[in-house]
Amino acid sequence: MKFKDNNRPLILLTNDDGTNVPGIKALIELARPLGNVIAIAPDEGRSGMSHAITIKYPLLITRLREEEGFVFYSCSGTPGDCVKLALDKLADRQPDLILSGINHGSNTSISVVYSGTMAAAIEGGIHGIPSIGLSVVDHSPHAELSSAVVFGKKIIANTLQNGLPDGVCLNVNFPPVDSARIKGVKVCRQTRGLWKEEFDHRVDPLKRDYYWLTGYFDNHEPDAEDTDEWAIKNEYVSVVPVKVDFSAHHVMDKLASVYEEKIKV
Amino acid sequence: MKFKDNNRPLILLTNDDGTNVPGIKALIELARPLGNVIAIAPDEGRSGMSHAITIKYPLLITRLREEEGFVFYSCSGTPGDCVKLALDKLADRQPDLILSGINHGSNTSISVVYSGTMAAAIEGGIHGIPSIGLSVVDHSPHAELSSAVVFGKKIIANTLQNGLPDGVCLNVNFPPVDSARIKGVKVCRQTRGLWKEEFDHRVDPLKRDYYWLTGYFDNHEPDAEDTDEWAIKNEYVSVVPVKVDFSAHHVMDKLASVYEEKIKV
Repeated sequence: MKFKDNNRPLILLTNDDGTNVPGIKALIELARPLGNVIAIAPDEGRSGMSHAITIKYPLLITRLREEEGFVFYSCSGTPGDCVKLALDKLADRQPDLILSGINHGSNTSISVVYSGTMAAAIEGGIHGIPSIGLSVVDHSPHAELSSAVVFGKKIIANTLQNGLPDGVCLNVNFPPVDSARIKGVKVCRQTRGLWKEEFDHRVDPLKRDYYWLTGYFDNHEPDAEDTDEWAIKNEYVSVVPVKVDFSAHHVMDKLASVYEEKIKV
Repeated sequence: MKFKDNNRPLILLTNDDGTNVPGIKALIELARPLGNVIAIAPDEGRSGMSHAITIKYPLLITRLREEEGFVFYSCSGTPGDCVKLALDKLADRQPDLILSGINHGSNTSISVVYSGTMAAAIEGGIHGIPSIGLSVVDHSPHAELSSAVVFGKKIIANTLQNGLPDGVCLNVNFPPVDSARIKGVKVCRQTRGLWKEEFDHRVDPLKRDYYWLTGYFDNHEPDAEDTDEWAIKNEYVSVVPVKVDFSAHHVMDKLASVYEEKIKV
């Protein structure tokens, strides 16, 4: 994909909710004034797909729109597939920025591991490209997006100008409230906590057991003011820097004494 | 699931290659002498599914085998689903250990983010359960498993005895060589590198473009002796401790100066 004015910043844009939701439309409107935009999104909702990639089947893409400085594709794959395919086949050079979202639903705390939105941003980080996942904490298709639009615009412009530290992408969550109520932006860490499963057990007409995933978020530190859950509850925009190196460096020496020294050839 | 001798350690076991591959059969044989084993694996291969969870559809499970101290289910979902469903509906208490594998294929370096095998182990870590993903660096169904069997046995016994630091699980990779050639066990970090995509572009009989994922691993530090890729190439078993907190704590202050101070309400 070659744009007419190829000197503008190149922005790759995706999401995990599909091509026809308010979140991605709002993000496209934020991105287009800042550069040339290649948008490629799953052809249907792919929430909860995490960093899944399609290995056993090929990917199909369809061009939905093309205007000066903007092209929009749908893709049969996951958000991770969208980024990989765009980097290899759609962009004629390394993008200056990758944006994913605006997701309809929270990606605070441990949800970062299940999130297709964040997987796309992490994939960008793996490729050394400044990348941001943006989510509004309301999974309704009618979620209030005004905070995301007002503060997302500033965060995106800032990141395009300053870049990000190597191996780090951003997980940005917005409270689902009018932008006038936002108290500020907080750089914070992933809250310690987990989703507690409560599968809903039913029996189908063939007498087979089946299970629907349900559950609730169990916050292990609801009063910790340096966490993303606290920020959202107190009407701040949360910005969590996310690493693409998952190694637990702080326990290497301790574990070497258990696994290297005690297990000999 | 209540076992007759309920005082033995409880081990939950899964994989991402499906119920009928040599890797999971070998892991079951390693686990059974150590405790009661609940095995639940995807009903077909789910490689590259990462930490995907099934939200829009229910899960079906089928009991394949039941013997004293052992039960084996297949599940229509992902490795992450298998762990979540087993913790909620199959285990009568929190397992003492979660094992995932033995995967047919490498999960070194950045592959940890795409891996269903490792997602199951990370899900265990999220739940505070000592968890190990085990992979042999050969994706053939006929992969040489003897190193994994000999050294996996010791690593599993060690972990069951000592536990793991809170919020940490293990990513263990085995060279695909006879166990007699193994030089030792190395606790190491995830190699810096990435998969470079080279999608294979074709045109289908309806004249639509389609793309198969192919590519190669680009190792950014092939000579770094403290990495998992180096360990495997030099015929060590690699043990990478993996964190379930993805926050980049080392850049919080720096980013606060960019995002908190420059973006005001």
